[in-house]
Amino acid sequence: MRKLSLSTAQKIISAAFEKAAELGLKPLTVVVLDDGGHAVSMARQDGSSILRPQIANGKAYGALAVGTGTRWLNANAETRPHFVQALNGAAGGAIVPVPGGVLVKSPDGAVLGAVGVTGDTSDNDEAAALAGIEAVQLVADCG
Amino acid sequence: MRKLSLSTAQKIISAAFEKAAELGLKPLTVVVLDDGGHAVSMARQDGSSILRPQIANGKAYGALAVGTGTRWLNANAETRPHFVQALNGAAGGAIVPVPGGVLVKSPDGAVLGAVGVTGDTSDNDEAAALAGIEAVQLVADCG
Amino acid sequence: MRKLSLSTAQKIISAAFEKAAELGLKPLTVVVLDDGGHAVSMARQDGSSILRPQIANGKAYGALAVGTGTRWLNANAETRPHFVQALNGAAGGAIVPVPGGVLVKSPDGAVLGAVGVTGDTSDNDEAAALAGIEAVQLVADCG
Amino acid sequence: MRKLSLSTAQKIISAAFEKAAELGLKPLTVVVLDDGGHAVSMARQDGSSILRPQIANGKAYGALAVGTGTRWLNANAETRPHFVQALNGAAGGAIVPVPGGVLVKSPDGAVLGAVGVTGDTSDNDEAAALAGIEAVQLVADCG
Repeated sequence: MRKLSLSTAQKIISAAFEKAAELGLKPLTVVVLDDGGHAVSMARQDGSSILRPQIANGKAYGALAVGTGTRWLNANAETRPHFVQALNGAAGGAIVPVPGGVLVKSPDGAVLGAVGVTGDTSDNDEAAALAGIEAVQLVADCG
Repeated sequence: MRKLSLSTAQKIISAAFEKAAELGLKPLTVVVLDDGGHAVSMARQDGSSILRPQIANGKAYGALAVGTGTRWLNANAETRPHFVQALNGAAGGAIVPVPGGVLVKSPDGAVLGAVGVTGDTSDNDEAAALAGIEAVQLVADCG
Repeated sequence: MRKLSLSTAQKIISAAFEKAAELGLKPLTVVVLDDGGHAVSMARQDGSSILRPQIANGKAYGALAVGTGTRWLNANAETRPHFVQALNGAAGGAIVPVPGGVLVKSPDGAVLGAVGVTGDTSDNDEAAALAGIEAVQLVADCG
Repeated sequence: MRKLSLSTAQKIISAAFEKAAELGLKPLTVVVLDDGGHAVSMARQDGSSILRPQIANGKAYGALAVGTGTRWLNANAETRPHFVQALNGAAGGAIVPVPGGVLVKSPDGAVLGAVGVTGDTSDNDEAAALAGIEAVQLVADCG
């Protein structure tokens, strides 16, 4: 049995959308990946642009790639751009190193997967991801 | 407004899973693409293997690529393998030409998107896709 | 904690090499992937050719991609070549669909990872993989 | 016979892990490449994130690519970013130009291979690589 079930992933997505509605955010796309970086569920709201699934995936995958949320990658992209560029080369260009990719952990610290959100500002995207993870009583790591 | 809304896509996925449960199928992955070939929603059931999202996407994308369901592509792969290979070259390898990629049309014949299902036999995958499309009163084209 | 630990992976590799020595096989390369398809450990024996790590990886990854050992993919490559070709397109060419990629399951059927072996005949490669999995009391699925 | 044997590579990895335990480092991934840049052995400790094998490989490969350790590449990335970017273009994005990729030489100066370590800070990664190379009485070149 996969640790992050489809049922949990769908609850995370619903709660992220509820938070987005509450904050009046632009149309979002949310993806939930398992601990191996493989998508469990994805939803793109009406009006969310066409590359959003790949962007959301790239945030969540970036968090899993280095073992912490993409806020860490965003900071490194400013202080050590050659590292983040090379990391993305090693990842085949699959990483989007800006906030909004949040690691999902169990209470004992095991990595269960990651949530990626895109569509509004990076800070707002991250807020929606956090609300999703909080709704299922799991632990978020923003980086 | 996109013609195939997130709400409709999620209903298609739920109905496909209900049909799968009724038929006792293996764990499935279902993706719904809009008419531009971009994912609206995706769900991978617990136990569905890690490449399934790409396979489901490749079926749905194949249907949109040629304007009919992947049953047609499967037949062509047997009679004209060079055509299907070349088609996939043009598509960057993104097409999976076996049954289970079903075009979604409105009652007046307009293409709204496509559903891709994978996890059981190709015929059973297609049956689940059909049940999903039927549940939202849209028209299915299996090819 | 990852389900297939480094310690377990190293025992699998050692046991596979012991079996190979017993059978007098050519120099092998063995890789052990976790359930997300990410390498836990890899070893290439002296004299095993330079592309062997990628071949071993491609066998193990193929098993995880479809949820069963690569003997199944090998059979499909003969009966439905267009399916296996398309699958590899969806996988970015990462799959090597011949025997020697064996799924590793827990006694209750959960997928823990996969072992890929290459260097001798595909049947002998598979025999070495099986010996490795047996040595750690896990369940093998050859496809 | 390859100059850097599997037995030597495995000793390097074990010694690097011992040093990491002694220093209390985060979970590491260590790869040893031969003089042709092809992996001899790799091990990812439990809890080391999913892209670490590629990162470790990218450090070791970078050292072999230019004939000195990646500390030199890291310095160049700051003073001549266009050079390191172009180098990585020529390498297909396979190089990770930060410390932790250490060239392995024989006492007479011949290049035998390279070690790549990732998981903690770049300086600590390099310290683990050095301990590994020292354990087999070979000569390290950090760049």
